[in-house]
Amino acid sequence: MKSGLSFLVAAKRCEIAELQQLALTSALVNVTGRLVHGLQRERGLSNLHLGSQGARFADMRARQIEECRQIEAELRACFDTLDTGSASRIGHGARLFSRIAYVLHGLDALEALRERVASLAWTPRQATEAYVRLIAGLLAVVFEAADSASDPEVSRLLVALFNFMQGKEFTGQERAAGSALFASGRADAAEQQRLLHLIESQERCLQVFVEFANPKAVDLWTASQASATLAELERLRRVLCTAAQGAPLNVQLSQAWFDCCSQRIDRMKAVEDRLALDLLRACEDKIAAARADMEAYQALSATSARETDALSFFKLVPASSAPTGSPGFGTPVQAYGLQLERSILELVQEQAHRLQTMSEELDTVRASLNERKLIERAKGLLMAHRQLSEEEAHKTMRQMAMNQNRRLVEVAEAVLAMADVLPERPR
Amino acid sequence: MKSGLSFLVAAKRCEIAELQQLALTSALVNVTGRLVHGLQRERGLSNLHLGSQGARFADMRARQIEECRQIEAELRACFDTLDTGSASRIGHGARLFSRIAYVLHGLDALEALRERVASLAWTPRQATEAYVRLIAGLLAVVFEAADSASDPEVSRLLVALFNFMQGKEFTGQERAAGSALFASGRADAAEQQRLLHLIESQERCLQVFVEFANPKAVDLWTASQASATLAELERLRRVLCTAAQGAPLNVQLSQAWFDCCSQRIDRMKAVEDRLALDLLRACEDKIAAARADMEAYQALSATSARETDALSFFKLVPASSAPTGSPGFGTPVQAYGLQLERSILELVQEQAHRLQTMSEELDTVRASLNERKLIERAKGLLMAHRQLSEEEAHKTMRQMAMNQNRRLVEVAEAVLAMADVLPERPR
Repeated sequence: MKSGLSFLVAAKRCEIAELQQLALTSALVNVTGRLVHGLQRERGLSNLHLGSQGARFADMRARQIEECRQIEAELRACFDTLDTGSASRIGHGARLFSRIAYVLHGLDALEALRERVASLAWTPRQATEAYVRLIAGLLAVVFEAADSASDPEVSRLLVALFNFMQGKEFTGQERAAGSALFASGRADAAEQQRLLHLIESQERCLQVFVEFANPKAVDLWTASQASATLAELERLRRVLCTAAQGAPLNVQLSQAWFDCCSQRIDRMKAVEDRLALDLLRACEDKIAAARADMEAYQALSATSARETDALSFFKLVPASSAPTGSPGFGTPVQAYGLQLERSILELVQEQAHRLQTMSEELDTVRASLNERKLIERAKGLLMAHRQLSEEEAHKTMRQMAMNQNRRLVEVAEAVLAMADVLPERPR
Repeated sequence: MKSGLSFLVAAKRCEIAELQQLALTSALVNVTGRLVHGLQRERGLSNLHLGSQGARFADMRARQIEECRQIEAELRACFDTLDTGSASRIGHGARLFSRIAYVLHGLDALEALRERVASLAWTPRQATEAYVRLIAGLLAVVFEAADSASDPEVSRLLVALFNFMQGKEFTGQERAAGSALFASGRADAAEQQRLLHLIESQERCLQVFVEFANPKAVDLWTASQASATLAELERLRRVLCTAAQGAPLNVQLSQAWFDCCSQRIDRMKAVEDRLALDLLRACEDKIAAARADMEAYQALSATSARETDALSFFKLVPASSAPTGSPGFGTPVQAYGLQLERSILELVQEQAHRLQTMSEELDTVRASLNERKLIERAKGLLMAHRQLSEEEAHKTMRQMAMNQNRRLVEVAEAVLAMADVLPERPR
């Protein structure tokens, strides 16, 4: 018959298994980030190639494709190591696997997309949208990883990393859209609107990153931003976004714009690498700490340490502060003395309290992810039912928020509450 | 190299494993409920025994103890079958195990408690508090099971069951407190206050039960309530609660009160059994449905069904409704046609959407559990820092809610927000 102590050890073993899974997921996130980065470059070069009617960038694009193929092979190998045979990924496993299934379909379609670009069969806009969709699928894997993390600190780092990656993706889309606009040689109001939207979305993501990342990572980002590149970027943004509809744009600036954005993206990549490293280290540290705890528990069961008085269960906390309905929700038993001197019951109460606290911290971190889900769902609803583009849907909601003096997430909730009364989406 | 389809199957396998775990947990909840019921009777009889100075109820109590010992052995066997060796209970496993560790300490102390009662060493109040604590530990296991359920329908049933069990426990405490009060032969304002608090807490739990249970279970409860027992209970409640401080109470009513409450509790037990049955059936049905889905997927991989056009990945959803940043958050691809006629990609999107919807429904159900956690934590804080009893803390918060015209959960949030500025708890 199992003792209380054996379940104390079992609980710790669960924690360790979760952290190990998180470490595997973090490694997966790392490779995913590298492929996203590679595809962002490939998208940019494909755009330039299409914009030049196939006259330029063919070699650079070919080299980039080769690099992407290598990272893709690495990512597929990473997927293969995930234990899909057993159902060990209880919890959010189903959602992560479902995202991966989607990504694999996208990767399977990648070569066909590349052929379309090589044969100039698609417009830059079509090619961009295809890459955007594939990258969105990859980022959804990272989002799911952040949403499934069971440790609040790791979850916090994953939220920071996801938002940074998403911000970088908006930067990549800005690069593509700006390149195409410069290359077209003429200002276009709709495209300018799209650029402004991408800049705004980018800044929103970076704000969340600043909120959740370690201060050192934020410092690294701040330091890498304070450079001439940012000034040049803002100058080119001004040129792009303030030109009157139909006014000529300097086609030669296309390359300058691309280089400037690329520099920014490369710097973002350095910060991203740092975030990924922080993540892996946090997992390792936590696994080591949990292992040490477990060994201490096991040592305890090997010694003769026993409850001196079984009735201590009924005495440990003053009766007045023992909540009638719910142990573990109240205040903790304060830790004191050496570990071996404490009774097992105290360890049990301490562990229950720690798990409870962790769960509360996790809820706080996840709230930011939930807000994002609500906003995206509301946007999707507006797009489907009112035939709006993503930019238009976002703009509509932002306008509602300003008019009603409410937060964007509150507007999203109101939109979703209206879902039932909206007409069916025409097919 | 694994295909998208293999991850579709893997996601389904994860769902099945979660449901199987949930079925095991439901079986555990079932035995836990029976032990709670047995201990509630044992507590009542122990109180009567102590109240009669050991003159009466010794035999009934002995028989009840024997029954409890048998269910305890069953529950311990149930704990033993939980797979604590491997870490298969990823997710909320650590918290469930931690609750079980606590319960095992309580069960280890049970014989010592029984000796204290047999030797009349404890007052009825002390004995009641000891049983209350042990039962609270058992109910915390059920709460954790509800909180860890990954399926919204099962989670809903577990929330209904937990609240019903908790409501029944408040009824049991009411029985014990009322018995002791009648047996003492004299009205006591503090005990009367405690009774009113127990009645109110009981009704709050039953409201949540009505909100979350299947309509048939609610009907069963309503039907079993509409009886003479309820009228008799309310009459005795009135006699108990309205007597002036120090006024005499009819000692003979002690047995009538006990019988009346016991009848109510036995009827509650019948509803509880029905809820536990609903739960097991829901798990079975869902496992069967998920298995059928998985077999359909596997059949698909055995046939020659293939994507006719890899580029369909980029075409499936009109470009205007593909959210830039986040696939799967938007509107679903509507299901149409026979399963085998649909492409694998459509299945992938459908699954992602379904998982997303489930996760949203789950959040809604869990919100009720989170409110409970917040209220209990706030109560615990007030009890610890202001040296209040549970009833006093609850009354304080309810008063604040009425004065400020806010919901109890909002008051709880405000109390918790004050935690940092409250003085350290004296030790």
